[in-house]
Amino acid sequence: MSSSLVLYSYWRSSAAFRVRIALNLKGLPYETRAVHLVRDGGEQHSPDYVALNPQQLVPTLVDGGKVITQSMAIAEYLEDIHPQPALLPVEAADRARVRALAQAVACDIHPLGNLRVLQRTGKQFSADDEQQAIWMRHWITTGFQALEAMLAHSRQTGRYCHGDTPGLADLCLVPQVYNARRWKTPLGDYPTILRIDAACAELDAFQAAMPERQPDAPK
Amino acid sequence: MSSSLVLYSYWRSSAAFRVRIALNLKGLPYETRAVHLVRDGGEQHSPDYVALNPQQLVPTLVDGGKVITQSMAIAEYLEDIHPQPALLPVEAADRARVRALAQAVACDIHPLGNLRVLQRTGKQFSADDEQQAIWMRHWITTGFQALEAMLAHSRQTGRYCHGDTPGLADLCLVPQVYNARRWKTPLGDYPTILRIDAACAELDAFQAAMPERQPDAPK
Repeated sequence: MSSSLVLYSYWRSSAAFRVRIALNLKGLPYETRAVHLVRDGGEQHSPDYVALNPQQLVPTLVDGGKVITQSMAIAEYLEDIHPQPALLPVEAADRARVRALAQAVACDIHPLGNLRVLQRTGKQFSADDEQQAIWMRHWITTGFQALEAMLAHSRQTGRYCHGDTPGLADLCLVPQVYNARRWKTPLGDYPTILRIDAACAELDAFQAAMPERQPDAPK
Repeated sequence: MSSSLVLYSYWRSSAAFRVRIALNLKGLPYETRAVHLVRDGGEQHSPDYVALNPQQLVPTLVDGGKVITQSMAIAEYLEDIHPQPALLPVEAADRARVRALAQAVACDIHPLGNLRVLQRTGKQFSADDEQQAIWMRHWITTGFQALEAMLAHSRQTGRYCHGDTPGLADLCLVPQVYNARRWKTPLGDYPTILRIDAACAELDAFQAAMPERQPDAPK
Protein backbone atom coordinates (compact mmCIF):
# COMPACT_ATOMS: atom_id res chain seq x y z
CA MET A 1 0.00 0.00 0.00
CA SER A 2 2.87 2.36 0.72
CA SER A 3 3.62 2.76 -2.99
CA SER A 4 0.32 4.61 -3.31
CA LEU A 5 1.33 7.50 -1.05
CA VAL A 6 0.90 10.89 -2.67
CA LEU A 7 2.12 14.05 -0.95
CA TYR A 8 0.73 17.42 -1.96
CA SER A 9 3.69 19.60 -1.18
CA TYR A 10 5.39 22.93 -1.82
CA TRP A 11 9.16 22.93 -1.86
CA ARG A 12 9.59 25.74 0.68
CA SER A 13 6.69 24.91 3.03
CA SER A 14 8.00 24.04 6.50
CA ALA A 15 5.01 21.82 7.16
CA ALA A 16 5.50 19.84 3.94
CA PHE A 17 9.24 19.64 4.70
CA ARG A 18 8.39 17.96 8.04
CA VAL A 19 6.27 15.30 6.36
CA ARG A 20 8.93 14.63 3.71
CA ILE A 21 11.42 13.94 6.52
CA ALA A 22 8.92 11.66 8.28
CA LEU A 23 8.29 9.67 5.10
CA ASN A 24 12.03 9.39 4.45
CA LEU A 25 12.85 8.35 8.04
CA LYS A 26 10.33 5.55 7.70
CA GLY A 27 11.60 4.60 4.28
CA LEU A 28 8.21 5.11 2.64
CA PRO A 29 8.31 6.01 -1.06
CA TYR A 30 5.85 8.65 -2.18
CA GLU A 31 4.90 10.69 -5.20
CA THR A 32 5.12 14.49 -4.94
CA ARG A 33 2.35 16.64 -6.36
CA ALA A 34 3.41 20.26 -6.26
CA VAL A 35 0.99 22.94 -5.03
CA HIS A 36 2.46 26.32 -5.85
CA LEU A 37 1.51 28.61 -2.98
CA VAL A 38 2.18 31.89 -4.82
CA ARG A 39 1.70 31.43 -8.57
CA ASP A 40 -1.71 32.41 -9.98
CA GLY A 41 -2.84 33.62 -6.58
CA GLY A 42 -1.97 30.31 -4.95
CA GLU A 43 -2.86 26.86 -6.29
CA GLN A 44 -3.92 25.89 -2.75
CA HIS A 45 -7.09 27.91 -3.38
CA SER A 46 -8.07 25.97 -6.53
CA PRO A 47 -11.41 24.11 -6.29
CA ASP A 48 -9.74 20.72 -6.73
CA TYR A 49 -7.34 21.33 -3.87
CA VAL A 50 -9.98 22.88 -1.60
CA ALA A 51 -12.04 19.72 -2.02
CA LEU A 52 -9.05 17.76 -0.75
CA ASN A 53 -7.99 20.19 1.96
CA PRO A 54 -10.59 22.77 3.03
CA GLN A 55 -7.92 24.62 5.00
CA GLN A 56 -6.18 25.43 1.70
CA LEU A 57 -2.81 24.64 3.24
CA VAL A 58 -0.09 22.16 2.40
CA PRO A 59 0.70 19.38 3.02
CA THR A 60 -1.98 16.80 2.30
CA LEU A 61 -1.15 13.10 2.23
CA VAL A 62 -3.28 10.74 0.19
CA ASP A 63 -2.93 7.06 1.09
CA GLY A 64 -5.10 5.09 -1.30
CA GLY A 65 -8.56 6.51 -0.61
CA LYS A 66 -7.58 8.19 2.65
CA VAL A 67 -6.93 11.91 2.76
CA ILE A 68 -4.86 13.13 5.71
CA THR A 69 -4.21 16.79 6.47
CA GLN A 70 -2.14 18.67 9.06
CA SER A 71 1.57 17.81 9.18
CA MET A 72 1.58 16.61 12.78
CA ALA A 73 -1.50 14.45 12.21
CA ILE A 74 0.21 13.01 9.12
CA ALA A 75 3.37 12.22 11.09
CA GLU A 76 1.33 10.48 13.80
CA TYR A 77 -0.59 8.62 11.10
CA LEU A 78 2.65 7.34 9.59
CA GLU A 79 3.70 6.29 13.10
CA ASP A 80 0.41 4.43 13.54
CA ILE A 81 0.57 2.56 10.22
CA HIS A 82 4.36 2.03 10.08
CA PRO A 83 5.54 1.98 13.69
CA GLN A 84 9.19 1.25 12.84
CA PRO A 85 11.52 3.07 12.73
CA ALA A 86 9.71 5.04 15.43
CA LEU A 87 9.36 8.81 15.46
CA LEU A 88 8.35 8.73 19.14
CA PRO A 89 9.95 7.00 22.15
CA VAL A 90 8.13 4.32 24.13
CA GLU A 91 7.52 5.82 27.60
CA ALA A 92 4.56 8.17 27.99
CA ALA A 93 6.54 11.01 29.59
CA ASP A 94 9.22 10.73 26.89
CA ARG A 95 6.59 10.77 24.16
CA ALA A 96 5.13 13.88 25.77
CA ARG A 97 8.54 15.56 25.82
CA VAL A 98 9.07 14.91 22.11
CA ARG A 99 5.56 16.03 21.22
CA ALA A 100 5.97 19.20 23.30
CA LEU A 101 9.23 20.06 21.54
CA ALA A 102 7.57 19.43 18.18
CA GLN A 103 4.56 21.55 19.09
CA ALA A 104 6.70 24.36 20.43
CA VAL A 105 7.65 24.72 16.75
CA ALA A 106 4.45 23.59 15.06
CA CYS A 107 2.03 25.56 17.26
CA ASP A 108 4.07 28.48 18.61
CA ILE A 109 6.61 29.47 15.94
CA HIS A 110 5.64 28.29 12.50
CA PRO A 111 1.97 29.39 12.36
CA LEU A 112 2.98 32.97 13.12
CA GLY A 113 5.23 33.12 10.09
CA ASN A 114 3.11 31.28 7.61
CA LEU A 115 2.74 32.93 4.20
CA ARG A 116 -0.89 33.87 4.82
CA VAL A 117 0.02 35.55 8.10
CA LEU A 118 2.73 37.65 6.46
CA GLN A 119 0.28 38.57 3.72
CA ARG A 120 -2.21 39.60 6.39
CA THR A 121 0.27 41.87 8.20
CA GLY A 122 0.78 43.60 4.87
CA LYS A 123 -2.92 43.91 4.16
CA GLN A 124 -4.11 44.93 7.63
CA PHE A 125 -1.10 46.82 9.01
CA SER A 126 0.64 47.84 5.77
CA ALA A 127 3.72 45.97 6.91
CA ASP A 128 6.46 46.16 4.28
CA ASP A 129 9.16 43.54 3.67
CA GLU A 130 11.38 44.83 6.45
CA GLN A 131 8.48 44.98 8.95
CA GLN A 132 7.51 41.44 8.00
CA ALA A 133 11.09 40.27 8.52
CA ILE A 134 11.10 41.87 11.98
CA TRP A 135 7.82 40.09 12.79
CA MET A 136 9.24 36.76 11.60
CA ARG A 137 12.47 37.11 13.51
CA HIS A 138 10.62 38.13 16.67
CA TRP A 139 8.66 34.87 16.78
CA ILE A 140 11.56 32.69 15.73
CA THR A 141 13.75 34.29 18.40
CA THR A 142 11.07 33.98 21.09
CA GLY A 143 10.52 30.35 20.19
CA PHE A 144 14.17 29.41 19.86
CA GLN A 145 15.06 30.94 23.24
CA ALA A 146 12.54 28.58 24.85
CA LEU A 147 13.52 25.61 22.71
CA GLU A 148 17.22 26.11 23.44
CA ALA A 149 16.43 26.08 27.18
CA MET A 150 14.22 22.99 26.83
CA LEU A 151 16.98 21.16 24.95
CA ALA A 152 20.11 22.42 26.71
CA HIS A 153 18.79 21.85 30.24
CA SER A 154 17.63 18.27 29.71
CA ARG A 155 19.75 15.17 30.08
CA GLN A 156 17.35 13.51 27.65
CA THR A 157 18.69 15.57 24.79
CA GLY A 158 21.26 13.55 22.89
CA ARG A 159 22.68 13.72 19.42
CA TYR A 160 19.13 14.62 18.40
CA CYS A 161 16.31 16.34 20.31
CA HIS A 162 15.58 13.18 22.27
CA GLY A 163 18.40 10.70 22.68
CA ASP A 164 20.35 9.43 19.73
CA THR A 165 17.49 8.64 17.36
CA PRO A 166 15.97 11.28 15.08
CA GLY A 167 12.25 11.72 15.52
CA LEU A 168 9.19 13.94 15.62
CA ALA A 169 10.90 16.88 17.32
CA ASP A 170 13.82 16.88 14.90
CA LEU A 171 11.60 16.84 11.85
CA CYS A 172 9.96 20.02 13.15
CA LEU A 173 13.19 21.68 14.28
CA VAL A 174 15.15 21.35 11.05
CA PRO A 175 12.60 23.06 8.76
CA GLN A 176 12.28 25.85 11.34
CA VAL A 177 16.05 26.39 11.36
CA TYR A 178 15.99 26.46 7.55
CA ASN A 179 13.24 29.06 7.75
CA ALA A 180 15.18 31.08 10.36
CA ARG A 181 18.19 31.24 8.04
CA ARG A 182 16.01 32.31 5.16
CA TRP A 183 14.86 35.26 7.28
CA LYS A 184 18.44 36.00 8.39
CA THR A 185 17.64 35.41 12.06
CA PRO A 186 20.77 35.60 14.26
CA LEU A 187 21.27 32.07 15.63
CA GLY A 188 24.38 32.43 17.78
CA ASP A 189 22.45 32.06 21.05
CA TYR A 190 21.17 28.59 20.17
CA PRO A 191 24.18 26.24 20.14
CA THR A 192 22.14 23.15 21.01
CA ILE A 193 19.62 23.81 18.26
CA LEU A 194 22.43 24.32 15.75
CA ARG A 195 24.27 21.20 16.90
CA ILE A 196 21.15 19.07 16.44
CA ASP A 197 20.40 20.69 13.08
CA ALA A 198 23.91 19.82 11.92
CA ALA A 199 23.56 16.23 13.13
CA CYS A 200 20.30 15.88 11.21
CA ALA A 201 21.86 17.40 8.10
CA GLU A 202 24.17 14.39 7.89
CA LEU A 203 21.25 12.00 7.43
CA ASP A 204 19.92 11.03 4.01
CA ALA A 205 16.33 11.32 5.24
CA PHE A 206 16.82 15.01 5.99
CA GLN A 207 18.99 15.76 2.96
CA ALA A 208 16.47 14.31 0.52
CA ALA A 209 13.71 16.39 2.11
CA MET A 210 15.50 19.72 1.70
CA PRO A 211 13.52 22.32 -0.23
CA GLU A 212 16.13 22.71 -2.96
CA ARG A 213 15.98 18.99 -3.67
CA GLN A 214 12.26 18.98 -4.44
CA PRO A 215 10.93 18.58 -7.98
CA ASP A 216 9.09 21.92 -7.77
CA ALA A 217 12.07 23.94 -6.52
CA PRO A 218 13.23 26.68 -8.90
CA LYS A 219 16.25 25.63 -10.98
CA MET B 1 -0.82 8.51 41.13
CA SER B 2 -3.58 10.51 39.49
CA SER B 3 -4.30 12.39 42.73
CA SER B 4 -0.88 14.03 42.30
CA LEU B 5 -1.81 15.82 39.08
CA VAL B 6 -1.25 19.58 39.23
CA LEU B 7 -2.37 21.84 36.39
CA TYR B 8 -0.86 25.28 35.98
CA SER B 9 -3.74 27.07 34.39
CA TYR B 10 -5.29 30.44 33.65
CA TRP B 11 -9.06 30.61 33.68
CA ARG B 12 -9.42 32.19 30.23
CA SER B 13 -6.59 30.40 28.40
CA SER B 14 -7.95 28.28 25.55
CA ALA B 15 -5.03 25.86 25.85
CA ALA B 16 -5.58 25.33 29.59
CA PHE B 17 -9.33 24.99 28.93
CA ARG B 18 -8.56 22.10 26.53
CA VAL B 19 -6.55 20.24 29.14
CA ARG B 20 -9.20 20.77 31.82
CA ILE B 21 -11.73 19.12 29.50
CA ALA B 22 -9.34 16.24 28.79
CA LEU B 23 -8.76 15.63 32.50
CA ASN B 24 -12.48 15.77 33.18
CA LEU B 25 -13.37 13.44 30.29
CA LYS B 26 -10.95 10.91 31.72
CA GLY B 27 -12.23 11.44 35.24
CA LEU B 28 -8.81 12.43 36.58
CA PRO B 29 -8.85 14.71 39.63
CA TYR B 30 -6.29 17.50 39.63
CA GLU B 31 -5.24 20.53 41.60
CA THR B 32 -5.31 23.92 39.86
CA ARG B 33 -2.45 26.37 40.33
CA ALA B 34 -3.39 29.68 38.81
CA VAL B 35 -0.88 31.55 36.64
CA HIS B 36 -2.22 35.04 36.05
CA LEU B 37 -1.21 35.99 32.52
CA VAL B 38 -1.74 39.73 32.91
CA ARG B 39 -1.24 40.79 36.54
CA ASP B 40 2.20 42.11 37.48
CA GLY B 41 3.36 41.87 33.87
CA GLY B 42 2.35 38.20 33.69
CA GLU B 43 3.12 35.51 36.26
CA GLN B 44 4.11 33.19 33.42
CA HIS B 45 7.35 35.19 33.21
CA SER B 46 8.30 34.61 36.88
CA PRO B 47 11.56 32.68 37.42
CA ASP B 48 9.78 29.80 39.15
CA TYR B 49 7.38 29.32 36.27
CA VAL B 50 10.03 29.75 33.59
CA ALA B 51 12.00 26.94 35.25
CA LEU B 52 8.92 24.75 34.82
CA ASN B 53 7.93 25.95 31.37
CA PRO B 54 10.62 27.79 29.39
CA GLN B 55 8.01 28.81 26.82
CA GLN B 56 6.32 30.92 29.53
CA LEU B 57 2.92 29.72 28.39
CA VAL B 58 0.10 27.87 30.11
CA PRO B 59 -0.80 25.10 30.64
CA THR B 60 1.80 22.93 32.35
CA LEU B 61 0.83 19.58 33.85
CA VAL B 62 2.90 18.14 36.69
CA ASP B 63 2.39 14.43 37.31
CA GLY B 64 4.53 13.48 40.29
CA GLY B 65 8.02 14.39 39.14
CA LYS B 66 7.08 14.68 35.46
CA VAL B 67 6.56 18.08 33.88
CA ILE B 68 4.52 18.10 30.68
CA THR B 69 4.00 21.19 28.54
CA GLN B 70 1.95 21.96 25.41
CA SER B 71 -1.76 21.27 25.60
CA MET B 72 -1.84 18.74 22.75
CA ALA B 73 1.17 16.86 24.16
CA ILE B 74 -0.57 16.82 27.56
CA ALA B 75 -3.78 15.43 26.04
CA GLU B 76 -1.83 12.70 24.23
CA TYR B 77 0.05 11.97 27.47
CA LEU B 78 -3.23 11.52 29.33
CA GLU B 79 -4.35 9.21 26.52
CA ASP B 80 -1.13 7.20 26.88
CA ILE B 81 -1.34 6.79 30.67
CA HIS B 82 -5.15 6.50 30.97
CA PRO B 83 -6.36 5.07 27.66
CA GLN B 84 -10.02 4.88 28.71
CA PRO B 85 -12.26 6.69 28.08
CA ALA B 86 -10.40 7.36 24.85
CA LEU B 87 -9.92 10.79 23.31
CA LEU B 88 -8.93 9.23 19.99
CA PRO B 89 -10.61 6.51 17.89
CA VAL B 90 -8.92 3.21 17.14
CA GLU B 91 -8.28 3.19 13.38
CA ALA B 92 -5.25 5.10 12.10
CA ALA B 93 -7.13 7.14 9.50
CA ASP B 94 -9.79 8.03 12.06
CA ARG B 95 -7.14 9.06 14.57
CA ALA B 96 -5.59 11.23 11.88
CA ARG B 97 -8.92 12.87 11.14
CA VAL B 98 -9.46 13.75 14.80
CA ARG B 99 -5.91 15.02 15.21
CA ALA B 100 -6.21 17.10 12.04
CA LEU B 101 -9.44 18.71 13.28
CA ALA B 102 -7.76 19.40 16.63
CA GLN B 103 -4.70 20.86 14.98
CA ALA B 104 -6.74 23.00 12.63
CA VAL B 105 -7.65 24.83 15.85
CA ALA B 106 -4.48 24.34 17.89
CA CYS B 107 -2.01 25.20 15.10
CA ASP B 108 -3.95 27.41 12.71
CA ILE B 109 -6.43 29.47 14.73
CA HIS B 110 -5.48 29.72 18.37
CA PRO B 111 -1.76 30.64 18.09
CA LEU B 112 -2.64 33.67 15.97
CA GLY B 113 -4.87 35.10 18.70
CA ASN B 114 -2.78 34.30 21.73
CA LEU B 115 -2.33 37.15 24.20
CA ARG B 116 1.31 37.62 23.29
CA VAL B 117 0.44 37.92 19.59
CA LEU B 118 -2.17 40.59 20.24
CA GLN B 119 0.33 42.44 22.41
CA ARG B 120 2.85 42.21 19.58
CA THR B 121 0.43 43.67 17.00
CA GLY B 122 0.03 46.61 19.37
CA LYS B 123 3.73 47.04 19.92
CA GLN B 124 4.91 46.55 16.34
CA PHE B 125 1.97 47.85 14.31
CA SER B 126 0.29 50.15 16.87
CA ALA B 127 -2.87 48.08 16.54
CA ASP B 128 -5.59 49.38 18.85
CA ASP B 129 -8.36 47.31 20.44
CA GLU B 130 -10.55 47.49 17.35
CA GLN B 131 -7.69 46.53 15.03
CA GLN B 132 -6.83 43.62 17.30
CA ALA B 133 -10.45 42.48 17.26
CA ILE B 134 -10.42 42.58 13.45
CA TRP B 135 -7.21 40.50 13.44
CA MET B 136 -8.75 37.97 15.83
CA ARG B 137 -11.98 37.65 13.91
CA HIS B 138 -10.12 37.27 10.62
CA TRP B 139 -8.27 34.18 11.83
CA ILE B 140 -11.24 32.67 13.63
CA THR B 141 -13.40 33.17 10.52
CA THR B 142 -10.75 31.72 8.20
CA GLY B 143 -10.33 28.73 10.47
CA PHE B 144 -14.01 28.14 11.11
CA GLN B 145 -14.86 28.24 7.39
CA ALA B 146 -12.44 25.35 6.87
CA LEU B 147 -13.53 23.49 10.00
CA GLU B 148 -17.20 23.80 9.09
CA ALA B 149 -16.43 22.27 5.68
CA MET B 150 -14.35 19.49 7.23
CA LEU B 151 -17.16 18.65 9.66
CA ALA B 152 -20.26 19.23 7.51
CA HIS B 153 -18.99 17.26 4.51
CA SER B 154 -17.96 14.14 6.42
CA ARG B 155 -20.17 11.23 7.30
CA GLN B 156 -17.83 10.57 10.21
CA THR B 157 -19.07 13.65 12.00
CA GLY B 158 -21.70 12.65 14.53
CA ARG B 159 -23.09 14.22 17.64
CA TYR B 160 -19.50 15.32 18.24
CA CYS B 161 -16.63 16.05 15.83
CA HIS B 162 -16.04 12.34 15.28
CA GLY B 163 -18.93 10.01 15.87
CA ASP B 164 -20.92 10.08 19.07
CA THR B 165 -18.07 10.18 21.58
CA PRO B 166 -16.44 13.46 22.64
CA GLY B 167 -12.69 13.56 22.11
CA LEU B 168 -9.57 15.43 21.14
CA ALA B 169 -11.17 17.53 18.41
CA ASP B 170 -14.08 18.58 20.61
CA LEU B 171 -11.84 19.68 23.45
CA CYS B 172 -10.10 22.01 21.00
CA LEU B 173 -13.27 23.20 19.28
CA VAL B 174 -15.23 24.26 22.36
CA PRO B 175 -12.60 26.64 23.81
CA GLN B 176 -12.19 28.17 20.35
CA VAL B 177 -15.93 28.79 20.07
CA TYR B 178 -15.85 30.36 23.55
CA ASN B 179 -13.01 32.58 22.38
CA ALA B 180 -14.88 33.45 19.17
CA ARG B 181 -17.85 34.63 21.20
CA ARG B 182 -15.61 36.68 23.45
CA TRP B 183 -14.38 38.50 20.33
CA LYS B 184 -17.92 38.86 19.00
CA THR B 185 -17.20 36.84 15.87
CA PRO B 186 -20.32 36.26 13.73
CA LEU B 187 -20.96 32.50 13.88
CA GLY B 188 -24.08 32.09 11.74
CA ASP B 189 -22.19 30.41 8.91
CA TYR B 190 -21.03 27.51 11.09
CA PRO B 191 -24.13 25.48 12.02
CA THR B 192 -22.21 22.22 12.45
CA ILE B 193 -19.65 23.83 14.74
CA LEU B 194 -22.43 25.40 16.82
CA ARG B 195 -24.38 22.15 16.99
CA ILE B 196 -21.34 20.26 18.27
CA ASP B 197 -20.51 23.05 20.72
CA ALA B 198 -24.04 22.84 22.10
CA ALA B 199 -23.84 19.05 22.43
CA CYS B 200 -20.58 19.36 24.35
CA ALA B 201 -22.04 22.04 26.59
CA GLU B 202 -24.46 19.45 27.96
CA LEU B 203 -21.63 17.34 29.35
CA ASP B 204 -20.31 17.75 32.89
CA ALA B 205 -16.71 17.41 31.66
CA PHE B 206 -17.08 20.51 29.51
CA GLN B 207 -19.19 22.47 31.99
CA ALA B 208 -16.71 22.01 34.82
CA ALA B 209 -13.88 23.18 32.55
CA MET B 210 -15.57 26.47 31.62
CA PRO B 211 -13.46 29.55 32.36
CA GLU B 212 -16.04 31.07 34.71
CA ARG B 213 -16.04 27.92 36.83
CA GLN B 214 -12.31 28.10 37.57
CA PRO B 215 -10.96 29.09 41.00
CA ASP B 216 -8.99 31.99 39.50
CA ALA B 217 -11.92 33.47 37.53
CA PRO B 218 -12.97 36.97 38.63
CA LYS B 219 -16.01 36.95 40.93
